[in-house]
Amino acid sequence: MKKHILVIPGDGIGQEVTQWGKAALAQIAKNFGHEFTFDEALMGHAAIEVTGNPLPDETLEKARKSDAILFGAIGHAMYDNDPSLKVRPEQGLLKIRKELGLYANLRPILLFDELLEASSIKADILQGTDILFFRELTGDVYFGEKSRSEDRNTASDLMIYHKYEVERIAHKAYQAAQQRSKRLCSVDKANVLESSRLWRETVQEIAKQYPDVETEHMFIDNAAMQLIKNPKKFDVVLTANLFGDILTDEASQIAGSMGMLASASVGDGVGFYEPIHGSAHDIAGKNLANPLASILSAALMLEISFGLKEEATTLVNAVDKALKDGYRTGDIADQNTDTAKVLGTQEMGQLVLTYLAQ
Amino acid sequence: MKKHILVIPGDGIGQEVTQWGKAALAQIAKNFGHEFTFDEALMGHAAIEVTGNPLPDETLEKARKSDAILFGAIGHAMYDNDPSLKVRPEQGLLKIRKELGLYANLRPILLFDELLEASSIKADILQGTDILFFRELTGDVYFGEKSRSEDRNTASDLMIYHKYEVERIAHKAYQAAQQRSKRLCSVDKANVLESSRLWRETVQEIAKQYPDVETEHMFIDNAAMQLIKNPKKFDVVLTANLFGDILTDEASQIAGSMGMLASASVGDGVGFYEPIHGSAHDIAGKNLANPLASILSAALMLEISFGLKEEATTLVNAVDKALKDGYRTGDIADQNTDTAKVLGTQEMGQLVLTYLAQ
Ligand SMILES: CC(C)[C@H](C(=O)O)[C@@H](O)C(=O)O
Ligand SMILES: CC(C)[C@H](C(=O)O)[C@@H](O)C(=O)O
Repeated sequence: MKKHILVIPGDGIGQEVTQWGKAALAQIAKNFGHEFTFDEALMGHAAIEVTGNPLPDETLEKARKSDAILFGAIGHAMYDNDPSLKVRPEQGLLKIRKELGLYANLRPILLFDELLEASSIKADILQGTDILFFRELTGDVYFGEKSRSEDRNTASDLMIYHKYEVERIAHKAYQAAQQRSKRLCSVDKANVLESSRLWRETVQEIAKQYPDVETEHMFIDNAAMQLIKNPKKFDVVLTANLFGDILTDEASQIAGSMGMLASASVGDGVGFYEPIHGSAHDIAGKNLANPLASILSAALMLEISFGLKEEATTLVNAVDKALKDGYRTGDIADQNTDTAKVLGTQEMGQLVLTYLAQ
Repeated sequence: MKKHILVIPGDGIGQEVTQWGKAALAQIAKNFGHEFTFDEALMGHAAIEVTGNPLPDETLEKARKSDAILFGAIGHAMYDNDPSLKVRPEQGLLKIRKELGLYANLRPILLFDELLEASSIKADILQGTDILFFRELTGDVYFGEKSRSEDRNTASDLMIYHKYEVERIAHKAYQAAQQRSKRLCSVDKANVLESSRLWRETVQEIAKQYPDVETEHMFIDNAAMQLIKNPKKFDVVLTANLFGDILTDEASQIAGSMGMLASASVGDGVGFYEPIHGSAHDIAGKNLANPLASILSAALMLEISFGLKEEATTLVNAVDKALKDGYRTGDIADQNTDTAKVLGTQEMGQLVLTYLAQ
């Protein structure tokens, strides 16, 4: 199989981890006789520094021409500390999601048995958890009109949904639920928000087309609580953009660390794969970041964009083997970890590559 | 001390638990020689059924005339299942918050040692946690303009903040931080939302007036994760209305159960005290609800509205004694609980009263 992959490392630890996702893809190509070609492009603060634009036209063009995109992370402390800056790294990520029609963000909460103890949640509560989030990604308060009054004393963002936006992601989520345990939980705040009432009504309608799937509607506040109280209760979770952002980060604690979670953004065309962790500027450049989420993002690419199931499994198994052999990055180490086996970004990446090459 | 207290049981389990908060107040008055008089009023579904209005004028009038309000819960499955209904119970709660100027919602995460094991989070992660949330309560997407297009296919809610709204709650939160461990974490989504950028700018300004308090700014997604990863990291947490709704429900798992958490809403005038749990219609009328959050809400009333510290402590101690003696309601029972000591709403309420009367 011939595929052309665009790699966008982005900012902070994105620079460090993405090379390992890319290297893993290259090794898989070698193992299975595929021909993967790679290109690189700038986005975020990295792009602002060079071009003044968080999403340069060139990046967007390259993205459109690629068969899939591997992305790192975005964001920089400079902007976080100065809310008045007009050009911001995150605009690049939001724009590429919108331009490529990446309306469905899949975030599987993949639980490795070896990491059960790395979580702050009790192992018996976690064991057996298997959640697949469908987070809407191109609507909501992220994309509604923003405004600031002239005296700068009033600011607003419009939380807005169109019915077709809810429908298309609901269909994707229901189809996934049919392939899984046939349970879907839709999260909203319909007791307060009009946009959530549209969300709920629409999901209620779509639900009728999937009578084999059991639907539950839950308020976001309750969901944020239930998710840690009883994570096994959930299977497919369908959420709006903002609520999904919050819930999936929270859910990362189920998997032991944010450093383990990959995501796939899909929709109208090319697929976009990224760890759910951010740019983490506090640890950037220190060889401390966990490269496994990037490698697992590559696995999602193989499976979802290229339909290469066996190749994807090979990648996941290599990650699993590293964990089974006792290796950890700092974020997933616990008191039982052999300190000699706590690895840096480079060493963990290299280890997985070595397993793949065997 | 003479005080007039308005009791609004509201909907669902609110009807069952609020009478115990009230009874506890009456017993405290007796013990300490105060004169507390009580009145009752309708709100929510209970009020819609009788008057067609989720917040009847009479309730609002009684509220304005009272020295403090003890509230139960609001909401009903009928409305949750039918998003198209125009008159909804929650409108009553939102309206009374707005009308009474209850802009600051204080939600202390009070940890009883006896309940450490009732949480899904590991005891060693929880131990020593002491968080006080300041949730903004009369602004945000809760109160911004709502709209629905004529074809009903587009719906929106305006997420909006005015600078003065952020300032007044920030001052309250900083003042509390000065009395505590002098750490404040402000939560927003300033990397995406204009209203959050106003929030962050304003908090940065107010922070300068409290140089003895250490300020941290955190994105809501990260906060939702950190809260369960390392709850001890937090002391005073300052949030907007929606983010506070989500984070405090999530944080209820730290206290073992939502059934244990009380809250105080204060602002321009009279104080309003309520459990953070909802109406829980699935268990309503079954004598299963935990009355302790209502009793602890009464304790907050004594302390905050009436300045009766000793009386408040007496109430908290009675709750603590019930737990120390091994008594639990279903929501806080664990595998170590003596099943003979798992009590219903009535029995737990009565037990605390008995302790108070001793
Ligand atoms: C960086 C930020 C804009 C982004 C989001 O909020 O969507 C991130 O948190 C994510 O979840 O991908
Ligand atoms: C019932 C609902 C409107 C309310 C809210 O969202 O504010 C509740 O969840 C709360 O936290 O008090």
